[in-house]
Amino acid sequence: MSLLDETCAAIAAVDPAIAAAAQRRLDEKTKPRRSLGRLEDLACRMAAIRRTPAPDLPVKAIVVMGADHGVAEEGVSAYPQEVTRQMLLNFARGGAAINVLARQAEARLLVVDVGVREPLPPLSNVRVQRLGPGTSNMARGPAMRREQARAALECGIVIARELVGDGITLVGIGDMGIGNTTVASALTALFTGAPVEAVTGRGTGVDDAGLRRKIDVIRRAFAANDPDAGAPLDALAKMGGFEIAGLAGVVLGCAASQVPVMLDGFITGAAALAAVQLVPQAAGYVIASHQSAEAGHRFVLEALGLQPLLDLALRLGEGTGAALAMPLVDAALHILHDMATFAAAGVSDSGA
Amino acid sequence: MSLLDETCAAIAAVDPAIAAAAQRRLDEKTKPRRSLGRLEDLACRMAAIRRTPAPDLPVKAIVVMGADHGVAEEGVSAYPQEVTRQMLLNFARGGAAINVLARQAEARLLVVDVGVREPLPPLSNVRVQRLGPGTSNMARGPAMRREQARAALECGIVIARELVGDGITLVGIGDMGIGNTTVASALTALFTGAPVEAVTGRGTGVDDAGLRRKIDVIRRAFAANDPDAGAPLDALAKMGGFEIAGLAGVVLGCAASQVPVMLDGFITGAAALAAVQLVPQAAGYVIASHQSAEAGHRFVLEALGLQPLLDLALRLGEGTGAALAMPLVDAALHILHDMATFAAAGVSDSGA
Repeated sequence: MSLLDETCAAIAAVDPAIAAAAQRRLDEKTKPRRSLGRLEDLACRMAAIRRTPAPDLPVKAIVVMGADHGVAEEGVSAYPQEVTRQMLLNFARGGAAINVLARQAEARLLVVDVGVREPLPPLSNVRVQRLGPGTSNMARGPAMRREQARAALECGIVIARELVGDGITLVGIGDMGIGNTTVASALTALFTGAPVEAVTGRGTGVDDAGLRRKIDVIRRAFAANDPDAGAPLDALAKMGGFEIAGLAGVVLGCAASQVPVMLDGFITGAAALAAVQLVPQAAGYVIASHQSAEAGHRFVLEALGLQPLLDLALRLGEGTGAALAMPLVDAALHILHDMATFAAAGVSDSGA
Repeated sequence: MSLLDETCAAIAAVDPAIAAAAQRRLDEKTKPRRSLGRLEDLACRMAAIRRTPAPDLPVKAIVVMGADHGVAEEGVSAYPQEVTRQMLLNFARGGAAINVLARQAEARLLVVDVGVREPLPPLSNVRVQRLGPGTSNMARGPAMRREQARAALECGIVIARELVGDGITLVGIGDMGIGNTTVASALTALFTGAPVEAVTGRGTGVDDAGLRRKIDVIRRAFAANDPDAGAPLDALAKMGGFEIAGLAGVVLGCAASQVPVMLDGFITGAAALAAVQLVPQAAGYVIASHQSAEAGHRFVLEALGLQPLLDLALRLGEGTGAALAMPLVDAALHILHDMATFAAAGVSDSGA
């Protein structure tokens, strides 16, 4: 059995009975029942994923995958394609938003080149797992070959396994790839059935003409490739995104190891959507960090059945939203571990 | 001049030119313009308050004031009045949600008894500034005498001054007081002009009959006291809340010292509303941590012109929402300080 098939087969549904046990524990704490709202839901979700009613505080990592997209030649981004590579170098030097926010979240940052157009110089803190010099232009034919899509997924699975082996128990995911909101919009339209124009937004800031171009490009990509949502690996190959497929692999690898994945925004959401299309039970392992300003994101979250923790109008990517939401996981688990019960504190419990 | 008058006179409007300078600084960082959304707004707001385009990382404290409310005798809470005192003891022993979350936020926690019905035993970590054994029942007459309201405000001002003197540069505020959502609803209806039934919710969890009772009690309180929104000190005295008046004093004291105040939910929002009614410029110094599940809160935030950072359906109080949002202030300022510029990182800037 291939690594991908083996991993998919290992993903079991999360355990709602353990979530309920965590909720009972929370209900004994000195506060009105459910008064910590979605922080309590988060604690219960962590319990269900980790298979224990009081999971340890997480050991965190953020995986950022960078790749180029053939579709960028259609003029779908406000930025030139070189920026993907420039930003990976910026990640390596520690100057990007994700460097700053991962440090604050006390998350190890793993930057992976899964296929930037022009290779980077050797760097000690960028992992090289290139699947090619960027994808092909989906508007003219398949973005990846099927074997490339499988290799991208398996690359993500290998990375997830390594992180889990190192003791990581919460994995944030992030993306860098000029042109990738167009790809994510295509995948979102395909996997959710929502209209292309509803799930296509301005990305890093295209104007009205750019937005019309993105919609047109996605329609041409569908016409050229005829992707089928029911054949997700094939659809992922056709629409592409080495980083999107790689991050979908991280989701699958984490889910197989009962480790939660903190999504970032639209791109990572599309990656999770692809993973869930491959293995529906994987949905139980993902946590939505924030509601992105990008138009298609709410369709992704709805399809994944997730409510975001933050609503800060972020639209940067890189895993920044995941990093910002990670302290809330700590907070939720501290509540579960450290608060006094009504009985221990001698506080009257109305049961409200 | 009294301490209150002196403090009110010292509150100057925040400086929008410095917010604009902070935004220009953010616009040079390696990310699409405004792509960190409301995290950027937060950085700019901190800059405007602290009067520098790159404020230092905050030194944090959370002030939780506890008091009892005469109106509790009307049966407006799901919990017995003893719980106010029990929870202050729980705060002193470190077992409450705010203890757990303040620790995580690295905020010093200052618990103040401003008028719990039955005094606490002497405790090293609870400050005693009692204004009485709880307020009187506003449904039957004024909750406080005018001098008590002034003393409560000045108590908050003194505490704010001390914290600022100790080097604190971000103050969260929190409340504990069985019955205080009824008082906060009365103040919100009065100061925003919204209908009583729109701003009155279930607090810690009253049933339908309890909710009707709360609305009826507020109407009786208005009939008994005839409060005038244009005379805010008088209105605050009539509706009451030693802790609400005390926290309004903290807002004024912080604003006078150009220190930001992180609100919690509905009760602290009503305190800020009272402070802003006294000194409109104080509004520039408050930050909304979260959108509470309590019905009246959105009216408060709208009146204050604030957008909350978190939307987690919290309805606990104690300052818990303030503690949860504090890491976002750190994040916003780290971005301002630590990110590379386009020029330094050699990243192409499209200006998008």
